[in-house]
Amino acid sequence: MTRLAVIGPGLLGGSIALAARRAGNFRVAVWARRPDAVQELRDKEVADFASDDLRAVAEGADLAVLCVPIGVMPRLAAQLAEFLPPGALVTDVGSVKAPVVEALSPIFQGGARFIGSHPMAGSEQAGLSAARADLFDGATCIVTPEVDSAAADVATVSCFWETLGCRVVNLDPAAHDEMVARISHFPHLLAAVLVRSVDEDCAAAFEFIGPGFRDTTRVAAGPPAMWTEILQTNRVAVKKSAEAMIEKLHEALRLLDESPGDDTLMNQFLTEAKIRRDSLKKPTKQ
Amino acid sequence: MTRLAVIGPGLLGGSIALAARRAGNFRVAVWARRPDAVQELRDKEVADFASDDLRAVAEGADLAVLCVPIGVMPRLAAQLAEFLPPGALVTDVGSVKAPVVEALSPIFQGGARFIGSHPMAGSEQAGLSAARADLFDGATCIVTPEVDSAAADVATVSCFWETLGCRVVNLDPAAHDEMVARISHFPHLLAAVLVRSVDEDCAAAFEFIGPGFRDTTRVAAGPPAMWTEILQTNRVAVKKSAEAMIEKLHEALRLLDESPGDDTLMNQFLTEAKIRRDSLKKPTKQ
Repeated sequence: MTRLAVIGPGLLGGSIALAARRAGNFRVAVWARRPDAVQELRDKEVADFASDDLRAVAEGADLAVLCVPIGVMPRLAAQLAEFLPPGALVTDVGSVKAPVVEALSPIFQGGARFIGSHPMAGSEQAGLSAARADLFDGATCIVTPEVDSAAADVATVSCFWETLGCRVVNLDPAAHDEMVARISHFPHLLAAVLVRSVDEDCAAAFEFIGPGFRDTTRVAAGPPAMWTEILQTNRVAVKKSAEAMIEKLHEALRLLDESPGDDTLMNQFLTEAKIRRDSLKKPTKQ
Repeated sequence: MTRLAVIGPGLLGGSIALAARRAGNFRVAVWARRPDAVQELRDKEVADFASDDLRAVAEGADLAVLCVPIGVMPRLAAQLAEFLPPGALVTDVGSVKAPVVEALSPIFQGGARFIGSHPMAGSEQAGLSAARADLFDGATCIVTPEVDSAAADVATVSCFWETLGCRVVNLDPAAHDEMVARISHFPHLLAAVLVRSVDEDCAAAFEFIGPGFRDTTRVAAGPPAMWTEILQTNRVAVKKSAEAMIEKLHEALRLLDESPGDDTLMNQFLTEAKIRRDSLKKPTKQ
């Protein structure tokens, strides 16, 4: 029996609680700041125990998972460190890892210990109402140990995510941030920029959009406050991704100046993109 | 009874034939270049008559629809003009309109007459095997008359697309090309560039992609030869779209340099994108 403390009742926190209860062999306690969120947790029987009292949720926990916005983590972590028993493990669900690990790791030294995580699940929906026990089934969770992390702690946190349905991969925190900027953070900004660009110059065009434009820009419907925080926290890697893509775009635009009929280069460019896109495995879950 | 000649047996040509037969009151003839395509048309009973003899398909037609790649259209149109009876109408399904109208309109002067069309339906799939009678249900078809087009001809072509299930809008050919560059042609190139950019610099990241990246890049799986032709034919408008978006992207990247916590501008940018994206009506059909 693992005593699990979930700190934050949103899409991820709620889904972790539901997935842990589905897995069995957990006692699940969830902390929420607002009393109405606590009430919702109780009404929906998401956890064995729900409270707005952090001490009551944290006391006696074997594993605590921070499921709050990145900017709030250090303050909550400092309180959590007081209440957790020595030897407890702490992880989180933040989409950016190097700054989070850097801020949280020193807070948990000597008592509880911290190992960062990024379960790559979620959607443009947010909140407890979107939480589901199967959110993590087939999703990748990246666990980001530091050089001096204990192997046993990394194994415990990894095993936790596997129990919830994830495939677990370990990555260095900075390598994680660069990679996720490429495939998630920057594409999110790009989708928003695409929508805003059409909106400003040519809003009438929205009358004519089809399923292609809808899919290309779907992620732009995600929660703005959360994405603002992610993009600003990971700004260096996001800018690097943007620069790489702008350079590639200029290269592609030059291919448009080939003589008509002499279309080998652009055709080759699009063919390579298609082959790669076709190779991307379908996720087991949406 | 309208005698309909469909020139080309691909996704759009095949779907036009099927939709016309579903609507009733058409005699549908389809031309295909390759004998095996003619055989497939016959096996699937897509049309009342299928042949690789353009004269046999065109003779006696009231309305001919060119459903072949843009680059092939002028040559086929010249032959078609010889076979069609005077007074017949010709339209097409090309995704770029000004160059097509400019090339085809002079070919049909005196005998048959040309009015351009762009039915905004299709998918990353191609070929007769993907054709469906309901492809046009709820889709927008943009009909692009010239200044001197006869109102009755525009009405006839518009009515044809409505009979097939489309919502019809009239636009000037050049205005069409700028608008479609914004919402379809440039976003297609952008999706391909995004895939290629990650592929070159950080291919290992593909192991970690989720449904967001999949959706953002879905259109990059479209047929390269067709898209090469579209992008090169509409290169001026595509470049203009690209420049507008790159400028907007630089603007967004500057917002990342706001002091941490002072996130009003980026939040506002993403919120405006979200509001607009949320407002985009779901298409009645995929």
